[in-house]
Amino acid sequence: MSQGPTGIVMMNLGGPKTLDDVQPFLLKLFEDREIIQLPAQIFLGPFIAKRRTKSVQQNYADIGGGSPILKWTTEQGQGMCVRLDKLSPQTAPHKFYIAFRYINPFSEDALKAMQADGVKRAVAFTQYPQFSCATTGSSLNEIWRAAKRLGLQDAFDWSVIDRWPTHPKFIEAMTKTVKQGLAQFDKKDQDDALILFSAHSLPMNIINRGDAYPAEIGATVHEVMKQLNYSHEYMVTYQSEVGPVPWLGPSTENVIEELGKKKRKNVLVVGIAFTSDHIETLHELDIEYGELAHEAGISNYKRAPALNGMPLFQDALAEIVAEHLTRGDACSKQYGLRCAGCVNPQCRNILNPVVPFKRTNVTASPKNKDYQTV
Amino acid sequence: MSQGPTGIVMMNLGGPKTLDDVQPFLLKLFEDREIIQLPAQIFLGPFIAKRRTKSVQQNYADIGGGSPILKWTTEQGQGMCVRLDKLSPQTAPHKFYIAFRYINPFSEDALKAMQADGVKRAVAFTQYPQFSCATTGSSLNEIWRAAKRLGLQDAFDWSVIDRWPTHPKFIEAMTKTVKQGLAQFDKKDQDDALILFSAHSLPMNIINRGDAYPAEIGATVHEVMKQLNYSHEYMVTYQSEVGPVPWLGPSTENVIEELGKKKRKNVLVVGIAFTSDHIETLHELDIEYGELAHEAGISNYKRAPALNGMPLFQDALAEIVAEHLTRGDACSKQYGLRCAGCVNPQCRNILNPVVPFKRTNVTASPKNKDYQTV
Repeated sequence: MSQGPTGIVMMNLGGPKTLDDVQPFLLKLFEDREIIQLPAQIFLGPFIAKRRTKSVQQNYADIGGGSPILKWTTEQGQGMCVRLDKLSPQTAPHKFYIAFRYINPFSEDALKAMQADGVKRAVAFTQYPQFSCATTGSSLNEIWRAAKRLGLQDAFDWSVIDRWPTHPKFIEAMTKTVKQGLAQFDKKDQDDALILFSAHSLPMNIINRGDAYPAEIGATVHEVMKQLNYSHEYMVTYQSEVGPVPWLGPSTENVIEELGKKKRKNVLVVGIAFTSDHIETLHELDIEYGELAHEAGISNYKRAPALNGMPLFQDALAEIVAEHLTRGDACSKQYGLRCAGCVNPQCRNILNPVVPFKRTNVTASPKNKDYQTV
Repeated sequence: MSQGPTGIVMMNLGGPKTLDDVQPFLLKLFEDREIIQLPAQIFLGPFIAKRRTKSVQQNYADIGGGSPILKWTTEQGQGMCVRLDKLSPQTAPHKFYIAFRYINPFSEDALKAMQADGVKRAVAFTQYPQFSCATTGSSLNEIWRAAKRLGLQDAFDWSVIDRWPTHPKFIEAMTKTVKQGLAQFDKKDQDDALILFSAHSLPMNIINRGDAYPAEIGATVHEVMKQLNYSHEYMVTYQSEVGPVPWLGPSTENVIEELGKKKRKNVLVVGIAFTSDHIETLHELDIEYGELAHEAGISNYKRAPALNGMPLFQDALAEIVAEHLTRGDACSKQYGLRCAGCVNPQCRNILNPVVPFKRTNVTASPKNKDYQTV
């Protein structure tokens, strides 16, 4: 094709690959006002990041010295592209590029590689199934800023896959992980297992300004349980709260403690908002909450495997992209909708979109100096 | 049939039929510790109820002098039973009984009428599509207490329909109301309409102990939008917060104000958690938020009609009951699961269940004197 390859940018949080990466990763995280807003952030952010470095390094040391998210994303991207070339020969070849938010490969790295490969048509594909401004929103804003920083604002024709909380193939893959999780229990205990679908929590101020996240988490969970014919008791819980502000609950941690008090013996925890293993599954769910569950008397506390290298999930990724390319739209209808309480004028943009799209709820909020605009 | 009719108890909040009903209704509401917990509730509850009586009476005066919920529930029950006798002749005849939580007909009234009619097989059928301990949970606990107060604890063989957030026929009916709502806009404005799916809010302490409500609201909304092929922008919002405690947001009221500031002109509000018109639709959504929207500059603020007397919704009610009777279970798997943070030992019971069911997370919480146990 004269247009060159179709570039698929896989956006995710990312994680430190080595213990030395921990501090720069935390520094980036705590300077992102789209996820965390602190008073005097330019001073307080680095202060908190540095103070937390040692304990977070210890956590990464506990899980083998680094995050496996780059490895899994690479494997997922490779599987996706092989399938895409068959599913959608008219847009082949397909090449994937990884853009992590707080660690390399950054958006800049992805964009430079795309330019070197002669990519013109680019798809920004979030690896978060459910949309939140704190995750997908922040990653997209960063891609557009990075493109401007590199002078590449006209280099690519962009479209965005901004959410896929109930894509049938994703639900099928997720359901498979739940079944694999249940199979870890002794036969006699399987029926009794309570499934905790645990998602990363969000501060209530993000929820209250209109973030779509909790409703989309609810939708994903319901579709998975429908596939399972509602075979087990289940709950939606939220993990990884930090700091003194109120977060969305129920808290996975508190729920585990309460279940222990209520003499619950069989609990299966399922990460519902991430597609690869990372510190929140390998350390928080497995080690921290595992110890908590043990102390609370939950004798059989198990975790369903993450999607990681599952071929069915690569089928899902390829189908999501192929369907998107066939539809030919710039993004979902929802992506254009800024949150009702949004004060960030950068939100919900697409740089050089492949077709025009409607961005709404735009007027009013005065340009907010809290947000750097490149 | 020697067993007599199958009794279907339609449980709902209820609403004052006349202005004189307002004070007794509020007194009952503010004494229900399963929905509101106040310090010194026995004194503070009546105090607040009396203080609010005048303004709430004015609200009911504004909507014609009383709540239409009894009228609609009666019409829905009649339509449901006609259909059920055809769908499930083996359990016919079917008779419906209304049990409101805070106004007559109370649970006692329903139970006495069932006894008089010779009912043995009884189904407690919540009219709240999504489960919450504050609504369906409270109504069920009250039915069991009322049966004991009347000495009718062995009179009926009970099963429970405790939730139906994504029943296909309910989704079909709900989708129809959304389409009717969109049809109220001028053709040129229809595409621009933002759909606000508004549900009654809950205090965060109920959410945080593990209530299933927000995830089930998310599931309902997603199914409706799927039926609409995601044709419009939409949000899930929460209404009717009172008092100083934190409630689940985003608040419908705040969202309307923010949308006005952002120059949004076309907004369709859809009550997603109630099936009939009542004070929260006719007064809060139509009058109060209508004025707010007008002041905020939203020129076209419309509300989708409630399900009310829609025949398709009566089809849904009948199918939900018929499928339940065919399955033959006592309740959903979820009903048996007490919230992780529950301190109410009455929760998740079924009096004299038609078949045994498993109630879980039972141990530990010491009998709490805050809850009257009959």
